Amino acid sequence: MNRITSLFGIKYPIVQGGMAWCSGWRLASAVSNAGGLGVIGAGSMCPDLLREHIQKCKAATTKPFGVNVPLMYPQIDELMKIIVEEGVKIVITSAGNPKTWTSWLHAHNIVVVHVVASSKFAMKSEEAGVDAIVAEGFEAGGHNGREETTTLCLIPAVRKATTLPLIAAGGIGTGQSIMAAIILGAEGVQIGTRFALTYESSASQIFKEYCLRLNEGDTKLLLKKLSPTRLANNFFKNLVEQAEAKGATASELLELIGSGRPKKGILEGDLENGELEIGQIASLFRQQQSVDEVMNELIEDYSRLSKMRYEW
Amino acid sequence: MNRITSLFGIKYPIVQGGMAWCSGWRLASAVSNAGGLGVIGAGSMCPDLLREHIQKCKAATTKPFGVNVPLMYPQIDELMKIIVEEGVKIVITSAGNPKTWTSWLHAHNIVVVHVVASSKFAMKSEEAGVDAIVAEGFEAGGHNGREETTTLCLIPAVRKATTLPLIAAGGIGTGQSIMAAIILGAEGVQIGTRFALTYESSASQIFKEYCLRLNEGDTKLLLKKLSPTRLANNFFKNLVEQAEAKGATASELLELIGSGRPKKGILEGDLENGELEIGQIASLFRQQQSVDEVMNELIEDYSRLSKMRYEW
Repeated sequence: MNRITSLFGIKYPIVQGGMAWCSGWRLASAVSNAGGLGVIGAGSMCPDLLREHIQKCKAATTKPFGVNVPLMYPQIDELMKIIVEEGVKIVITSAGNPKTWTSWLHAHNIVVVHVVASSKFAMKSEEAGVDAIVAEGFEAGGHNGREETTTLCLIPAVRKATTLPLIAAGGIGTGQSIMAAIILGAEGVQIGTRFALTYESSASQIFKEYCLRLNEGDTKLLLKKLSPTRLANNFFKNLVEQAEAKGATASELLELIGSGRPKKGILEGDLENGELEIGQIASLFRQQQSVDEVMNELIEDYSRLSKMRYEW
Repeated sequence: MNRITSLFGIKYPIVQGGMAWCSGWRLASAVSNAGGLGVIGAGSMCPDLLREHIQKCKAATTKPFGVNVPLMYPQIDELMKIIVEEGVKIVITSAGNPKTWTSWLHAHNIVVVHVVASSKFAMKSEEAGVDAIVAEGFEAGGHNGREETTTLCLIPAVRKATTLPLIAAGGIGTGQSIMAAIILGAEGVQIGTRFALTYESSASQIFKEYCLRLNEGDTKLLLKKLSPTRLANNFFKNLVEQAEAKGATASELLELIGSGRPKKGILEGDLENGELEIGQIASLFRQQQSVDEVMNELIEDYSRLSKMRYEW
């Protein structure tokens, strides 16, 4: 029992990352049913689809779950209205100013968590009145911070900078890394990559199997002139990397990318032309598992490690 | 007592990084006298100067110490001859093939440790017969691996890939991060940045004070077309960054850099035109300390943390 488990009303301080094209109601409800916090990723959903996922999630679990909302979402007013109408109790906001929605969400009795990649934005989130923060390091998959601070360096820095309940993200997917995050000052963890590859994730099976074969060094943070994004090796990533090595400008990159690449890669399993967003830690996993298997392993490993003696 | 402390014959499994222009006999002997493993950085020394530093180090401590040798060093035969003649017992090799020197060093009863940034090179080091490895993550200062794997992701991967005694490096400079590294599977740590900023480091006081004012995000891994190097913000770093953003080739970068930049920055304290090599973790430290103060803090913090209960 700590500030994260009591804030969310959950058993274990394990939050599932709300990932575009991966985190639908199936994944979220499975994580919540296993004692963590399941999160629906609204970023890749039109408003009606989000409503459907929330309703299905409520039908599949009686436990708390959340919705992740990237604040740059074009129809954000509509999304927030649905979240309130459907009685969602926890919203995780990212990629934008936490001031814009926090008071409004609080007025609707919703717990607000904001995702940051630096102490500076952690302090801004505290000023905006959020209830907790997720601090996400360089090793995380998909969209990422500009400062490239790794989880090992970020968590102690954010812990010093704010008093908010702190959830560590980026490179976490085992009981060991959960315990490392706790020692660095976090009170909970957010796990993306490992849940993205479970049976319950809505990503394409082709994408999942591909990611389960990745080796160390097979992802890279690219697209820094647009929005830094960690991508797995494939034809599309090589295209981006080559263009960037030659000094491609932001607009040249936009033209090269076009639109719909993450959907193509993650949801449709187009391993050649799709954008494959996944974290560095993927290379540690070789076998597909269910959410229950993952959660049991995390909890057992953490429990075993926390009982060991580390004295010199 | 573990495999690292018994391999080196030291009290605490804390190795000081052998850093160019920072790690002379003063720093190395202070770390060894405090119960860690002090390391002379031969990379920035001509052979005669290395001999002088080894002799002074032997005069300043009766404890074990090591010498770090970058394997690309031009007069490496001469360097190795001096190391043997002076009776150095521990050599840490980096930036090259561990096969070239390991057997020869073993034949002279020298313990060999090799620095790697990936599991692949950890396995090659094991094949080459080294006695231990340092696995160094993306957040480390100065020269760095191409795969950009962070310490949090690297240590568990290397732990799985080899059975060698394992020293974690990159982003480590507090008791907390030492304990995190141990939980991730390391048996010891290598600390560079924090020791580079102590009184005993041979870096310029101007460089040290500058690094003690760095904020999060003030270092970046650049020069990826040559040899990836983490640099602190300054005029020189901006020059490199701008050239790279425009697609500068390796030869254009070489021309821009010229030679002697790290010496200029680190030893001579030229904050404008020098190359300032330091790790991400620098932003956590604000006060200059002696090696004894650092070591005491690390040991006390680790001891306190290792006695705490982390059970859920």
